[in-house]
This record gives sequence, C-alpha cells and structure tokens, in this order.
Amino acid sequence: MLVDLEDAYRLIAPRPIVLITTVDKDGRINAAPISWVTPVESEPPIVIFSTSYESDTYRNVSETEEFVLNLVPERIKKQMYTCGKSFPRGVNELEKAGLNWEPSEKVKPPRIVECPVNLECKLDWIHQGPEYVVVAGRVVAAHAQKGAMKAGRLNVEQVKPLLHVSGKNFVIGDHETGL
Amino acid sequence: MLVDLEDAYRLIAPRPIVLITTVDKDGRINAAPISWVTPVESEPPIVIFSTSYESDTYRNVSETEEFVLNLVPERIKKQMYTCGKSFPRGVNELEKAGLNWEPSEKVKPPRIVECPVNLECKLDWIHQGPEYVVVAGRVVAAHAQKGAMKAGRLNVEQVKPLLHVSGKNFVIGDHETGL
Repeated sequence: MLVDLEDAYRLIAPRPIVLITTVDKDGRINAAPISWVTPVESEPPIVIFSTSYESDTYRNVSETEEFVLNLVPERIKKQMYTCGKSFPRGVNELEKAGLNWEPSEKVKPPRIVECPVNLECKLDWIHQGPEYVVVAGRVVAAHAQKGAMKAGRLNVEQVKPLLHVSGKNFVIGDHETGL
Repeated sequence: MLVDLEDAYRLIAPRPIVLITTVDKDGRINAAPISWVTPVESEPPIVIFSTSYESDTYRNVSETEEFVLNLVPERIKKQMYTCGKSFPRGVNELEKAGLNWEPSEKVKPPRIVECPVNLECKLDWIHQGPEYVVVAGRVVAAHAQKGAMKAGRLNVEQVKPLLHVSGKNFVIGDHETGL
C-alpha cells in the first residue's frame, strides 16, 4: 500500500537515539535528543545529525562549532524524554532531567555520565536545507564505559540501546544475532 | 575508556539496514546494503545515505539521479549479505542473492519484493567529502506491505527489522516498549 509521504521517515526505523550536548558562547549547556543521526565515514570518523535552524543545538553549534553525541540507553528513557521538551534558551536540560555531566577531553560541551558512549566532535561541515540543517562533526575523542564494548563493537546486551520507532514508541536493541 | 577513533562509528548502533537499488544509464540493476542512512527531514521527506565514490550505487545515482531504499527484515539477512559482496559493475546483485523485484511507481530503480518497506527517491543534493559522499534523496513514493505498519508507525514485531551492530553482528529490532 502507498504511505502518506509525510510518514515516510517513520519507516527507516528503529534508529539509535543520542542526546546532543552543546554550549553557547557563554558556556551555558544544552542537551537535546535526536534520532536523525548516522556515521557517514569511518576514517576519519565523521557523524551527521539533522535539526532545525531554530534549535538551541544548531544555534550553539553555529556559535562554538563543537558538540558531543551521547548514546541513550534504555535506563534513561524518561530523562531523555524530558530533555526533548521545550525549555527557554539557556536552560540546562540535564539539570531539568536529573542527569549528570562531566568535562569532555577535547571540546567544551560536557559528556553525560549516564550515557555509556560519548563521541566528542568538532564541526566539519553543514548542509543548509530549506527548513532543516544537516550538521557533520569529526569525532576527536570517543569514550566507552566499562562493559559498553565487547570484541570491538557495542555490547548491546549490556548497554540496551534505546531506539526510536515513532512518537513515544521505542525498541530496546539488545537482541543480538549473527549472520 | 578511550576508544580508537576509527572504531567510533561502531558505537552509534544498532542502525537500520537498507538495500539501495539503482540502475545505470542502460537500465542495469544494482543493489547494495547500507546502514549509514537516516531521514533528515519529514516534510518534504528527505533521506540521506553515505557511500564511496567508487561504489556502483554512487555511479548509478550520478547517472540517473534516482534510488530506492528497501528496508531489510531479518528473514533476508543472508540475501542482504550476498548483495554486499563485490561483483563486477553491471551484475544484478538481486539475481545473485535470489531476491525478487518489481517496477517502482515513480522511478526506474525497482522495489525489492521481500522488503516490507520501499521508499522511491529522486536525488535532492550531494555532499562530496574527501573519500565519502553523502547522497540525499526526496521520497516521491513510499510503500509498506500489508502488516508492515500499525497506528502510523513501523510494525516492528511483524517486520523484525535487521539492524547493524558491526561486521556480521546484528540486532533484531522487534522488542517494542513505550515511555
């Protein structure tokens, strides 16, 4: 059957969710959940996400050219959802959600403590669409918590990554299989 | 712990896998699996994927400016893997893998019959990286098989989407949860 075109994006799913941390030029922290995210190159490692021109994430990246991708595990799904609510510019969503942060190694935006994986990124390029903007970052430091990797890959049974289907519907991606 | 930068992309996972069908200027069919794919806009629906300059997918898109994203369910994982092997240009991977195809509505590349979701796309923009290329397409027709959607979203229990972790390791994304 034919699907309404505005629903098409829901069919490339379920997708990993990241909380993107940024800071504005005064150092104020922002965190926003995004599931329109993917690597686009391995060496050098480049990751992209898509957002709106009006988002604090985009404004902050425009000002400071840095961001951190924090992978969202199932256990913080409610906190992730809180971060996605609309707060005035300058409000730290991590505080509102009760999440903790610590300094990054190479960029100003912080790493989220409750996230098992953090990728510190510097702006590489931007594609400006009519009403969306694709932001590409080069990963300059990658962190994984103890147990978050096995044999060089994500340890999905331990991490239990939260994947977005649509709206408030998610998949827990902890069900590994081989070829 | 710090992770080697060349492994960073493995940590934004697990990711949906699509088989991208394209045709060259002579109409010869190509199919390639890619998990570096995401929507970037809902209205109009824009999806992007990343590939190499040398890939048949990129060459064909350059020639004919069309492609189809076919979502990969668990039940065709071996066929998907066969499509990812290296064949000479002009070989139809769908034939090699024993997959079936049918004409699309609005573009020349075919839809894969065994894939529950097919998004027909026309080239919208390209970002040329040093050794990778990001291809963005506008969805011009979206198809879902009977049972592949429920309540306007992907029916993950029925579709059992195959998600890529790394190498030959996958997650079956059929384990839905609410907030």
